[in-house]
Amino acid sequence: MNLRELNLKETKEDLINSFRKDTLIIHTIHTVDILNSSMNKLIANLRERYSYYNIKDSKIPDSELFLKEVEKFNEGALSVKLGKRDLKSMSELLNEINSLKNLKESQRRYMENMMKEVCPNLLETAGDIIGAKLIELGGSLKNLAEMPSSKIQVLGAEKALFRHLIKKAKAPKFGVIFNHESISKAENKGKAARQLASKISIAVKKDYFKNK
Amino acid sequence: MNLRELNLKETKEDLINSFRKDTLIIHTIHTVDILNSSMNKLIANLRERYSYYNIKDSKIPDSELFLKEVEKFNEGALSVKLGKRDLKSMSELLNEINSLKNLKESQRRYMENMMKEVCPNLLETAGDIIGAKLIELGGSLKNLAEMPSSKIQVLGAEKALFRHLIKKAKAPKFGVIFNHESISKAENKGKAARQLASKISIAVKKDYFKNK
Repeated sequence: MNLRELNLKETKEDLINSFRKDTLIIHTIHTVDILNSSMNKLIANLRERYSYYNIKDSKIPDSELFLKEVEKFNEGALSVKLGKRDLKSMSELLNEINSLKNLKESQRRYMENMMKEVCPNLLETAGDIIGAKLIELGGSLKNLAEMPSSKIQVLGAEKALFRHLIKKAKAPKFGVIFNHESISKAENKGKAARQLASKISIAVKKDYFKNK
Repeated sequence: MNLRELNLKETKEDLINSFRKDTLIIHTIHTVDILNSSMNKLIANLRERYSYYNIKDSKIPDSELFLKEVEKFNEGALSVKLGKRDLKSMSELLNEINSLKNLKESQRRYMENMMKEVCPNLLETAGDIIGAKLIELGGSLKNLAEMPSSKIQVLGAEKALFRHLIKKAKAPKFGVIFNHESISKAENKGKAARQLASKISIAVKKDYFKNK
């Protein structure tokens, strides 16, 4: 093996070693986000179209229940305004929404499996969605492990943080961790956020330095 | 039939008559737009994920070609970085993108069929997408029929129009009609836009007043 080949081989190995699973986790939480927002937009759109068929059902606040109602609609009960063609087009839309929902679930499972390997402690402390979003916002597991817990606490609340720094508005109490149930259920949300952020900070450090 | 029943009946009929197919067209172009942007976001996401498998193919500029390459990837050629699970997850994503594409096509056909009934002349002059977007921007076929052709010309360029009115920037030459091939191919785009807008204006008036 000559010098050039050796060089190539080493570069290749370096590249492979520099590849981190957390990058895949970041891409996958991105996929989940896109699927989520696409679904929500299509559901809102279906509501508008369905309102010409049955205005009452189109306003069911819970999306799951609404979709179930739409699934039930039978062609026997054609409205005066809509014909078969209109209903067929809506039912195609409904099918796609369901298919997006299934894909979202399977992408979440895939992401969770990766997290079980790379950051089991983070996964357990923060959950799959919040955990993955924290990695995304931090940029990598490494960055997150080197971050003070006070910063983890407000990750995802950058706008509010800038308002605080520049305009002397109140400091934000939480970023993406806000959706964690230990906070949404707590009475003193500020305290709960501080506690959760500190737990997450320890978990991430465990996850990251275990593999070093 | 007593007075109350008569009243109810009339109100019901009024409601039905006030329902306009153009509203459905507006909702459907909305569906098409959502599907389009969801697809584009998912393709960009797939490109990022696929780049760990094959960085060269992930940069193919044409989306159609890129998706075809991804379809070809065989599990025999597993990369060092990605395992079967990663590829399976990507191939699920690919399937969803294809399914969104098919739905978009069928929703476009549905919309085109409605336009053939409600506004065949607009459809022929502007095409399905631009025609439907003009109805959406105008709010209804009626509004569009009562609109001067100079306004049709800049529908969808509201921001540029405001810049023109307030900051004395140049007047915009076209809004959504810009994507029409008679303009993108023309040398004098301003003139082509004026001509197209005037043709569209005549077509919409024909469509709308025919049914009056």
